[in-house]
Amino acid sequence: MPLLRAPGGGLVNVDLQPVGRRVQVAPGSTVLEAAQLAGVQLVAVCGGLGTCGTCRVRAVDGRLGEETEEERTWLDGSERAQGWRLACQTRVVGAVRLEIPPESLSTPQRLQTEGLSVDFELDPAVIAIDLALAPPSLEDLRADTRRLLEGLAAAGAPGTSVELRVAASSSDRLRDQHWQGRAAVRRRPDGTGDLVCIRPPKEPLLGLAVDTGTTKLAAYLVDLAGGHTLARAGAMNPQIVYGEDVVTRVTYANTSPDAARLLHERLVGEIDNLVGVLCAQAGARRDQIVDAVVVGNTVMHHFVTGLPVRQLGEAPYISAVSDAVVAGAAEIGLRLAGGAAVYLPPNIAAYVGSDHVAMLLATGLADTEETVLALDIGTNTEISLAHKGVIWSCSTASGPAFEGAHIHDGMRAAPGAIEHVRFRNGAFQVQTVEAQAPVGICGSGIVDAIAAALDAGIIDERGSLAKDHPLVSRSSGKPTCLLVPAARTGHGRDVVFTRSDVNEVQLAKGAIRAGTELLLQEAGLCASNLDRVVVAGAFGTYLDLQSAIRVGLLVDVDRHRYHQVGNAAGRGAEQLLLSRERRAVADRLAMRVRYVELTVNRSFTDVFAAALSFGTELGRAEERG
Amino acid sequence: MPLLRAPGGGLVNVDLQPVGRRVQVAPGSTVLEAAQLAGVQLVAVCGGLGTCGTCRVRAVDGRLGEETEEERTWLDGSERAQGWRLACQTRVVGAVRLEIPPESLSTPQRLQTEGLSVDFELDPAVIAIDLALAPPSLEDLRADTRRLLEGLAAAGAPGTSVELRVAASSSDRLRDQHWQGRAAVRRRPDGTGDLVCIRPPKEPLLGLAVDTGTTKLAAYLVDLAGGHTLARAGAMNPQIVYGEDVVTRVTYANTSPDAARLLHERLVGEIDNLVGVLCAQAGARRDQIVDAVVVGNTVMHHFVTGLPVRQLGEAPYISAVSDAVVAGAAEIGLRLAGGAAVYLPPNIAAYVGSDHVAMLLATGLADTEETVLALDIGTNTEISLAHKGVIWSCSTASGPAFEGAHIHDGMRAAPGAIEHVRFRNGAFQVQTVEAQAPVGICGSGIVDAIAAALDAGIIDERGSLAKDHPLVSRSSGKPTCLLVPAARTGHGRDVVFTRSDVNEVQLAKGAIRAGTELLLQEAGLCASNLDRVVVAGAFGTYLDLQSAIRVGLLVDVDRHRYHQVGNAAGRGAEQLLLSRERRAVADRLAMRVRYVELTVNRSFTDVFAAALSFGTELGRAEERG
Repeated sequence: MPLLRAPGGGLVNVDLQPVGRRVQVAPGSTVLEAAQLAGVQLVAVCGGLGTCGTCRVRAVDGRLGEETEEERTWLDGSERAQGWRLACQTRVVGAVRLEIPPESLSTPQRLQTEGLSVDFELDPAVIAIDLALAPPSLEDLRADTRRLLEGLAAAGAPGTSVELRVAASSSDRLRDQHWQGRAAVRRRPDGTGDLVCIRPPKEPLLGLAVDTGTTKLAAYLVDLAGGHTLARAGAMNPQIVYGEDVVTRVTYANTSPDAARLLHERLVGEIDNLVGVLCAQAGARRDQIVDAVVVGNTVMHHFVTGLPVRQLGEAPYISAVSDAVVAGAAEIGLRLAGGAAVYLPPNIAAYVGSDHVAMLLATGLADTEETVLALDIGTNTEISLAHKGVIWSCSTASGPAFEGAHIHDGMRAAPGAIEHVRFRNGAFQVQTVEAQAPVGICGSGIVDAIAAALDAGIIDERGSLAKDHPLVSRSSGKPTCLLVPAARTGHGRDVVFTRSDVNEVQLAKGAIRAGTELLLQEAGLCASNLDRVVVAGAFGTYLDLQSAIRVGLLVDVDRHRYHQVGNAAGRGAEQLLLSRERRAVADRLAMRVRYVELTVNRSFTDVFAAALSFGTELGRAEERG
Repeated sequence: MPLLRAPGGGLVNVDLQPVGRRVQVAPGSTVLEAAQLAGVQLVAVCGGLGTCGTCRVRAVDGRLGEETEEERTWLDGSERAQGWRLACQTRVVGAVRLEIPPESLSTPQRLQTEGLSVDFELDPAVIAIDLALAPPSLEDLRADTRRLLEGLAAAGAPGTSVELRVAASSSDRLRDQHWQGRAAVRRRPDGTGDLVCIRPPKEPLLGLAVDTGTTKLAAYLVDLAGGHTLARAGAMNPQIVYGEDVVTRVTYANTSPDAARLLHERLVGEIDNLVGVLCAQAGARRDQIVDAVVVGNTVMHHFVTGLPVRQLGEAPYISAVSDAVVAGAAEIGLRLAGGAAVYLPPNIAAYVGSDHVAMLLATGLADTEETVLALDIGTNTEISLAHKGVIWSCSTASGPAFEGAHIHDGMRAAPGAIEHVRFRNGAFQVQTVEAQAPVGICGSGIVDAIAAALDAGIIDERGSLAKDHPLVSRSSGKPTCLLVPAARTGHGRDVVFTRSDVNEVQLAKGAIRAGTELLLQEAGLCASNLDRVVVAGAFGTYLDLQSAIRVGLLVDVDRHRYHQVGNAAGRGAEQLLLSRERRAVADRLAMRVRYVELTVNRSFTDVFAAALSFGTELGRAEERG
């Protein structure tokens, strides 16, 4: 292995995406070495000899060294034209951002595809109608669609329409099936319906639910008749290489119509890939999927549907569409049954999306008379408060710290990420994802670490690191606290957190806490009035409540009032597949919500400032009465 | 000019399409010479020296001689790969069918784009709603479509929906136009509507009407607010190179999905070209066209919409769709305003299409209490009979004789076609299209010629040519009657008609007359009960009624009861653009019609046999009481 830290030489940044890991290496290092240093395991069957061609990567930003003979051997012309390289051969020559496709990663990242369960009546939008039609004859010359629609009316689905695309595929199919078949009919609220497709007799009809996160995608295949989840699959959002947060992606989309189209196509393409994965798992066919629900934040909603995003990125931040959308799957770019539609629930505002609506549905907030606070913590945190049937919602820019970004040794919840931290007997104890040797720290870990450091007196109420503590060092010029020494890490380097990491967490928790306080103010309530607090999302699931309350991220109420519900948005999407009543609630919900725009709220700056500290009432919940 | 008729050598057939002219030449002739011989004027600026590259043609069936150096100079690789040749350089080596694109023809063919006028209330499906919206602000964060739809509701269009494609283009446009604009809204029968597009304030909204014939296309651009026709354009149906009649094209479409897609794309592509021609004529933009109506026979209807045609070509001959269709223009492949739809009226049966429905509308047959017979004469002839509010319709295979096909010197109504014939002082007198020297005979000319020959005793009641008449010759082995001697024709060869031409006309007129008689039978009527007889279509317009009655093609009623109405289908299409009431009538019409299937009618064979002769009551109308 060559010298990675050249003596006296400058180091350059290598940003590995979508895994979300950064590392500094000496120019001349191979990309494979950089990845290993960062704790990212690439497939490299040949051990880096350039004889297997498996470790493909490409530069998204910045450039890489000269192409080698081995790369010309293993990559064909079109792959090389697209910028694909072999990580073991390619050398780092300057700062570079790399895309690592899933097939080049040896360990899959942990994805969040489970949620909570809520009871509702099974009444899917798309139902099966079994048909046995009389074949045409010289005495019965009815057109195919007339025959079909009259058959549907007789079988209990009067007033059904059939669009051209579906009519075009039905004529041959009805003849091939000798005029027998199962029709999938999507029911409209007015009692009429649309024919989705004709399938072989008795074949089960399936639905697709997708939660489109900024970072991760989660998809579910559901049996519409029984309501069972048949398969689950997750993937990273492939747009990450164009920006980790939605603002960067909106900026990129605005550079040209081609850029906007690319973001749309990569996102929908990955969802379409997940459909293939789900079908393979369940032994199903794409054209059995007769209905789909897609939820996501408003920017993801607009990228999926091909709506313009420019006005989402400029004040006053406006959605192109806020109402529920029912669009043709083919129009969006998903290959499902011929006439399948995609339902996207309404979004509440430019930064409170349909994923939050789905979460409110799944957690019962849409229906409750209780006083409930619900948070969906991410780069952007959406918060809703329900009280006596009224719902207030807001959105706050909490930044990517809890996703592991902008943190010195931050990373996502991949194997080797520190997810829990305790301080015992003068030292930190850590727990990692899949119990692998630590290589970095993910969102729940950084909150734990800071809470522990506060208790140990390593951090003061303003967030400064204690000068004289044995674990605090200033050798690199900036205050750093040692979490795991190099001898016990997976990559042979210290894992630390810095003063600036603490500051990132202060900004994030301050924004979330200020949003919470302002919603309580709007409703004339205080935290002790809350019957329940719902914390949704992957980060919220692994988050230690004690630590979150200790740092002031969450309000200090009885632990038993807290519910950590995982991917409630995905579960809400499944409910929207299975229940027309849930769709009706969702459609009304966005109209009912009182959206609170924090940027025009006069108290926001003061409350935010108070919430930044670990020492104020807002900043240190335990100090409250 | 080389020797075209090689002494003793065999001649080969050259079939020129879509102009519809056949000629026999000696192998070794150039294609330009063959076209000149056939009276088809190609653009050949350089006079056949191969130095201008304008006379492009290609072989659709059969092959041509070796490529010359000049062709390699004037045609690039991709043109040569597509089979394009230069007519002046390319030599005929065997029987061949050639496609001559419109740009290679020096004289345009006469196309039928005029019709009759009928009064109706101006009430187009798509209307303009002028908007002046409040711009978004931090105090008014409504989504763009919510703002737009609430503005439309306030301006008198409540309950409007907006589809994704239209929403996607509206956000930027509304901002560019400072929240002012003209909305085009397509109104649904239930009082709601669909947003078609947002246009600049006050810009006129336009509509497109298209009559899609098997042979010709006619397109009209209409001002929706005033009802005026702004531009008219015609073109040959580009599918002709894949077969002159619908049956051949259905057979071709059934060879593979690619073949069916090709027929769809060529047809829609030519309609889309016509849209460009219309816009250039009227100084308009494609995205001003907010609505479209397309009519055509059922096969053309299915090709335009991309519906399968297999079941149209096999007994019992079933339409995939018979009800009216409203489909997205973009879905069909027409580039109009973003959310523009195409309305296609219903078809009555596999061989009575929406063009016939449009003709019934335009001629008032749909509304009349009179007893009216209406005929649309073509390769397939549709006939309807209205009596006391009931309408009977049938279709009969009249063959292409009246289009000039399967006739020895037959051609379409291009310059030089004989369109009228009289017999005076022992000789035929002819009139040609555009008064050019005769080169062939079109449909109305052949009917005239046979009527005149019957009167002159050259043809007997069975259709045989008189053996001893000076104009009748048997020198070529088959009985031939001289119409114009070589000295007076445009190509220096005799123009004749043969015994077999007479037979073709007998089959055609027998089929049409038998259909007429069977509809009268169904209604319990005879010809004298008819208040009006409507003859539609190009052939019907130029047809001499006296001659048509003489040969037994039409029933013998007072000439003033006849109405020759030209392209009534195109005019009906315009009405459907301009009147929702006309659409409602059309939608109901197809349900009201009693379709009479001639192939299962027991009397058909007898009536047809009687109608073949020129001597029976049906065959020679003048002998009637």
